[in-house]
Amino acid sequence: MSEQLSPDFAKGGGLVTAIAQDWQDGTILMVAYMNEEAWHHTLQTGHATYWSRSRNKLWLKGESSGNVQKVHEIRVDCDADAVLLKVEQIGDAACHTGRRSCFYRVLREDGFVTDSEPIFDPKKVYGQ
Amino acid sequence: MSEQLSPDFAKGGGLVTAIAQDWQDGTILMVAYMNEEAWHHTLQTGHATYWSRSRNKLWLKGESSGNVQKVHEIRVDCDADAVLLKVEQIGDAACHTGRRSCFYRVLREDGFVTDSEPIFDPKKVYGQ
Repeated sequence: MSEQLSPDFAKGGGLVTAIAQDWQDGTILMVAYMNEEAWHHTLQTGHATYWSRSRNKLWLKGESSGNVQKVHEIRVDCDADAVLLKVEQIGDAACHTGRRSCFYRVLREDGFVTDSEPIFDPKKVYGQ
Repeated sequence: MSEQLSPDFAKGGGLVTAIAQDWQDGTILMVAYMNEEAWHHTLQTGHATYWSRSRNKLWLKGESSGNVQKVHEIRVDCDADAVLLKVEQIGDAACHTGRRSCFYRVLREDGFVTDSEPIFDPKKVYGQ
């Protein structure tokens, strides 16, 4: 039995939280936001599309670099204000720093430590 | 070399997004929010503490049920507005519906389908 459910965009002022997780090994690649347009664009294209809060525009992830996220599975949480995308990250790196995951800093006793290195050079991919 | 970094609470109106992921198998258990008080409470106690947007109060996860989340690792993302907690979920279930993960509905061709069952009876744990 299936449910004709849509994410609850109203609750978060038009946005839901979207988590991109590697579909194979479960690594959390990034967290972003979707408005209703981004949600429908993701469903229609099969490529993760977000709403950029900083640029205030639709953001097809990988549009400039070619490093798109192919969506293999979509889940919604209990109160429908967050979605989970299980994706195949083309080019392996999701972070604008060139690293695989945006969560590359881990908290140790004396502060945060970077524990992964860039896979690509962001200057080459995004330009200066 | 470590960084004396704090999550950027200002950016999201006082809140950062917090993802709780099972520290062993990588399952995403839930998504919630933290204000600065919740962040410090988490660091001090080692138990995941959030800010409840619906109840507008500090929310020590598992406070009433005993099903706390023991924090094994904390990560912050590239722009410091999201944190990732790798947790050990006491009682196995993180969702208020009694299921292990809040992301228990998966999108199929004809709508969302629930593909996991409750581990506990929420009526017994939380009362009517």
